[in-house]
Amino acid sequence: MSQVHAYAAHAEDAPLVPLTIERRALRDDDVAIDIHYCGVCHSDLHVAYNDWGSTRYPIVPGHEIVGKVTAVGKNVTRVAVGDAVGVGCMVDSCGSCAACHDGVEQYCLNGVTMTYGSDDRIDGTKTQGGYSSAIVTREDFVLTMPEGIELASAAPLLCAGITTYSPLRHHGVGKGHKVGVIGMGGLGHMGVKLARALGAEVTLFTRSEAKVEEARRNGAHHVVVSTDEAQMEAVAETFDFMLDTVPVAHDINPYLDALKYDGTHILVGLIEPVEPAIHGARLIGKRRAVAGSLIGGIAETQEMLDFCAAQKITCDVEMLDIKHINEAYARMQKGDVRYRFVIDMATLDA
Amino acid sequence: MSQVHAYAAHAEDAPLVPLTIERRALRDDDVAIDIHYCGVCHSDLHVAYNDWGSTRYPIVPGHEIVGKVTAVGKNVTRVAVGDAVGVGCMVDSCGSCAACHDGVEQYCLNGVTMTYGSDDRIDGTKTQGGYSSAIVTREDFVLTMPEGIELASAAPLLCAGITTYSPLRHHGVGKGHKVGVIGMGGLGHMGVKLARALGAEVTLFTRSEAKVEEARRNGAHHVVVSTDEAQMEAVAETFDFMLDTVPVAHDINPYLDALKYDGTHILVGLIEPVEPAIHGARLIGKRRAVAGSLIGGIAETQEMLDFCAAQKITCDVEMLDIKHINEAYARMQKGDVRYRFVIDMATLDA
Repeated sequence: MSQVHAYAAHAEDAPLVPLTIERRALRDDDVAIDIHYCGVCHSDLHVAYNDWGSTRYPIVPGHEIVGKVTAVGKNVTRVAVGDAVGVGCMVDSCGSCAACHDGVEQYCLNGVTMTYGSDDRIDGTKTQGGYSSAIVTREDFVLTMPEGIELASAAPLLCAGITTYSPLRHHGVGKGHKVGVIGMGGLGHMGVKLARALGAEVTLFTRSEAKVEEARRNGAHHVVVSTDEAQMEAVAETFDFMLDTVPVAHDINPYLDALKYDGTHILVGLIEPVEPAIHGARLIGKRRAVAGSLIGGIAETQEMLDFCAAQKITCDVEMLDIKHINEAYARMQKGDVRYRFVIDMATLDA
Repeated sequence: MSQVHAYAAHAEDAPLVPLTIERRALRDDDVAIDIHYCGVCHSDLHVAYNDWGSTRYPIVPGHEIVGKVTAVGKNVTRVAVGDAVGVGCMVDSCGSCAACHDGVEQYCLNGVTMTYGSDDRIDGTKTQGGYSSAIVTREDFVLTMPEGIELASAAPLLCAGITTYSPLRHHGVGKGHKVGVIGMGGLGHMGVKLARALGAEVTLFTRSEAKVEEARRNGAHHVVVSTDEAQMEAVAETFDFMLDTVPVAHDINPYLDALKYDGTHILVGLIEPVEPAIHGARLIGKRRAVAGSLIGGIAETQEMLDFCAAQKITCDVEMLDIKHINEAYARMQKGDVRYRFVIDMATLDA
């Protein structure tokens, strides 16, 4: 057992403040990691503020964790002390259900153990996330950071990256496909980069004229300002896939119209009612589908990291002193970040 | 040009009455058909009553047409005088777009020509459907009725049959799959029979206790009364596919919960807003999808007819004297038909 410094939320209406937490003694299949960087995901904010109603305080958010191995349990074979590694949204699963066998641990039939806010499967203690100086976790859920990847900007790949990569791969996106990406936040800008790297022709949909140039810089071949009806009409029945990264309620019907027959609209951010309601005729009349996707499995996350390293894809980040985490949350609520805050954990004890 | 007897709707609030209509002179690629039977689909009623707001009166409904060939144009090679044939929901398409090339003429990018209420692609006259003694139509959209199939009960296969067969095939339903079928009307009872014949384990969802025995007679392995919360909870995360044949707004969220991860909810009847709204987390959290499907292509319709003949699958029908068509519509609006009315066209001139 060790005491480590962290930042935690103690109540839904209170700012995050320093807290000392315990990390467990190394189990035989555990890896101890000094955390160098941790991305700040919108989920962190939702949990800190108890937006989903299930937060158990105090909670240390953070599931885009990158650092170096400091110790390993005796059964650990895949990583060694000094290795650069990552931990994403999950730290354990049952390992025996159909989903775990299929390599989609995120859909574990017995419930995945999330990086923060879950109960550890062995001792029942509450998991605490990456806004801290160190973490101890199972080797099977530790990603290895490929040679040459820039660690700070790779951190958000562990959530924003895999959340967009997984559905693109699952649906077989590649050369010859036209893909629309809706929204250009942390997820959306990764969606643009990844869909392009996978060979697709990419169109970014944004409500803001101001983002047109940015979208092109991120690799979008085309940009459609979604509030402009003429632009939306001009892309009717154009896309094979729509990757919808918007986390708040919005009308997806105009985007369904932009799909070809057999096209699929993929939701990765909208975990609330899809309102206004989807019109059934838009699905039936063109055999379209609306699908969801949640992060990705561990093997697929490693594949994504290796792909990003090979393609020299990283997340655009703004480095953050952890003492400014509450201001960062406030800016995120206004959409004021390009595109992900990453905490420099050296600031924790500074 | 020939004059044929028919039944037509003349206004949204008037009953169907006899009308003499013209059938065109045979073109080189046309087939003239004496109609023996015509199924009565819910769409007929919606068009007759102008429920979709686009009806151009007078309109002769009917797109589940079975009869015998009485004449063929000089380029017709596939059918001959005396053959038993069928005509379904479509009578023409552009033949040159991607959808037509893919054999999914129902999604023709230039707009499919429906059996009634569309404009003929050559002369622009309005197409009129199967509540009539004869029809003249393109050979490419004429189905051949397999040996041994019972013509009257095969008629509804041309819409109710293909509408359920096509999505089951498209999604690869077969042995090892658990399929839920929602609703047991004309479409639903065909869905049960077809999904079972394709090798799936089939559960019929109905709101009515009274339909439990009926569902088993139709081949359902299991029946769930959807208004019984305990029964619904007992099938959580059970199904690979849900075939939803309900044509009116209903909450699909409880059915999404009954899907496994990667499961697909297929809408074939709901051509209005999907309300109450689908909850995004139900899709994202388990990588589920909601998909639509519209009838099926011509080649697939032929495949379905041949499959039904081989499997001895037919539609359960109630034969109808065309003079009682308005009473039949009234009964359909109350769900009072097991499961499809089929007009015996011999009654038209009786």
